Amino acid sequence: MIGRLATAAQAGLLIMQTHCMNLSEATELVEAAFRKVSVPVESARSVASALVAAEAEGQVGHGFSRVEDYVAQVVSGKVVADASVSVAHAATTSLLIDAGNGFAYPALDAAIQAGAELAQEHGSATMAIYRSHHCGALSVQVEKLAQKGLVAMMVANAPAAMAPWGAKSAVFGTNPIAFAAPRDNKPPLVIDLSLSRVARGKVMNAKKAGSSIPEGWALDQDGKPTTDPEAALEGTMVPIGEAKGTALALMVEILAALMTGAARSAEASSFFSADGPPPNVGQYLIALKPSDNVGFASRLEDLLQHIESLDGARLPGQRRLAAMAKAREQGIDVPVRYIEAIRNIIDGQF
Amino acid sequence: MIGRLATAAQAGLLIMQTHCMNLSEATELVEAAFRKVSVPVESARSVASALVAAEAEGQVGHGFSRVEDYVAQVVSGKVVADASVSVAHAATTSLLIDAGNGFAYPALDAAIQAGAELAQEHGSATMAIYRSHHCGALSVQVEKLAQKGLVAMMVANAPAAMAPWGAKSAVFGTNPIAFAAPRDNKPPLVIDLSLSRVARGKVMNAKKAGSSIPEGWALDQDGKPTTDPEAALEGTMVPIGEAKGTALALMVEILAALMTGAARSAEASSFFSADGPPPNVGQYLIALKPSDNVGFASRLEDLLQHIESLDGARLPGQRRLAAMAKAREQGIDVPVRYIEAIRNIIDGQF
Repeated sequence: MIGRLATAAQAGLLIMQTHCMNLSEATELVEAAFRKVSVPVESARSVASALVAAEAEGQVGHGFSRVEDYVAQVVSGKVVADASVSVAHAATTSLLIDAGNGFAYPALDAAIQAGAELAQEHGSATMAIYRSHHCGALSVQVEKLAQKGLVAMMVANAPAAMAPWGAKSAVFGTNPIAFAAPRDNKPPLVIDLSLSRVARGKVMNAKKAGSSIPEGWALDQDGKPTTDPEAALEGTMVPIGEAKGTALALMVEILAALMTGAARSAEASSFFSADGPPPNVGQYLIALKPSDNVGFASRLEDLLQHIESLDGARLPGQRRLAAMAKAREQGIDVPVRYIEAIRNIIDGQF
Repeated sequence: MIGRLATAAQAGLLIMQTHCMNLSEATELVEAAFRKVSVPVESARSVASALVAAEAEGQVGHGFSRVEDYVAQVVSGKVVADASVSVAHAATTSLLIDAGNGFAYPALDAAIQAGAELAQEHGSATMAIYRSHHCGALSVQVEKLAQKGLVAMMVANAPAAMAPWGAKSAVFGTNPIAFAAPRDNKPPLVIDLSLSRVARGKVMNAKKAGSSIPEGWALDQDGKPTTDPEAALEGTMVPIGEAKGTALALMVEILAALMTGAARSAEASSFFSADGPPPNVGQYLIALKPSDNVGFASRLEDLLQHIESLDGARLPGQRRLAAMAKAREQGIDVPVRYIEAIRNIIDGQF
């Protein structure tokens, strides 16, 4: 698949070379990698489905690019391969879910399954997950609740990358907020955003490419604006809305780390390195059943149509839906280097 | 109290002249104004308490400055003076509260009372208020839930002032998000922010003062940046975080307008003018009980102490707490023009 490399330019092109796979092929391939390192079949399938779903919606930072690091963490024991998920009822509508220092996705599956039933019955439910790991694209998770007719919110914490406004050292992850609402005969409306102005992955990409970053993305270790990706990665990401962004990050931190009993962002270990203790991050979900008699479904259509009718406006998540439709019809273009890496894992090279 | 005006400069000073009142004097005075226009005693007290609480925490745009407009809306019938609040159970933990096109505050009192009990019993509760009015400082409301040991979120919609990112016409209010968490032996942590970069009141103040506004606050009717407050008030406010801010505003709109059955921001009438139909806006609150065994209280202290220990950082709500402490000890400085206006109402001049 990869031929002899003649020049550096050709090597650069080859690094970007992709192979088109349909979604079930892709899922089976990723699943096989995790099975190879003794992840039980149900968990392996859950992880593979979530990574491929993120890849399919264009969130490539949460897709195939993660497989090697995830596998390395299973091999080192940082992620417990055969973790069992336990779901406890802290109150009628409050679930406390122990991910057992395994992957986040099996815990999210259990949380969404049990939480949706509670919300359908009682009107609301919360799912607090601890001893968890990188949860990838939150959009993938909240959409599942909306597909069950529920309005959903989800927040997560992550290794610290953002300072409280005015300070120099990182206390918060880029702490995302996601939201979904069910639509009649249409895919749910999905909102998914991090509280940093740009994703940290963009800074990592700039570093890899040897280019500078625009001012306004990140601060260096001294809290000063920087255009050097290296200095940015040693410093902190700039929040949206200055102090408002870090106030929202504090809200997310309280829900995701403290309501769950998980580690704080500043305590969490890397999602990338195979070394160190488990990250023990947390995810917090709220599922809400729209009341009868408020006309939720039809009034949501009115609101969304109003927005779509405006010149220059677009609904959140439209690029995502287009990417998902294309992925279902035409498959996804997976970088060959990731496929090779996975084949190596399956061949026992890890 | 106001002497003969010699010069325009003196007149300017007099406009800013204040009179110091303690909080109970202030509440009684405001309550008397609403009693005079036939607002029942319990509602009058609720409205007065909320306005004085906002004034005491330094949110003067939600305090005494509102009394005359509120009273005028009662007189015109835009606000129903003797509205009765009804609380319905849409599900075990979902309350649907009809504010009856009266003031928001009595409905919020009922929502918080009933919702807190549900959340204590079941772990979570939601309170969806419709046919409501201006809800003032959200901080005042979420703090009450936190004082009952609950973590609280609140969102509200308001007459449209913000366009979807890229569009020209207003669809969303500045749609605030508030959050509170209980602390042991300390006032709750309170976060309260609007999703516009600055409050619309700042633009109104600039217009009154005849000064320009900084670029970045607002857009004109054509969606272009403007420094002219008049053009800004005819245009839209700039959201925090560009498209992220309006995505969050859409989330708030769905919760506050659609989960409640209230009017959308683009449909809501003014909170200032006495003309037109009732605004029929909505408020949506979520109350969450921290689970036992997650060490919520002590871990929150660890997190907040960590933030406070950092050079340059401060916790959200610290200015507010300082203002409240000063107000309790020394009273509040109320502009004399507001006191005069209230005395005129009490004397029957409205």
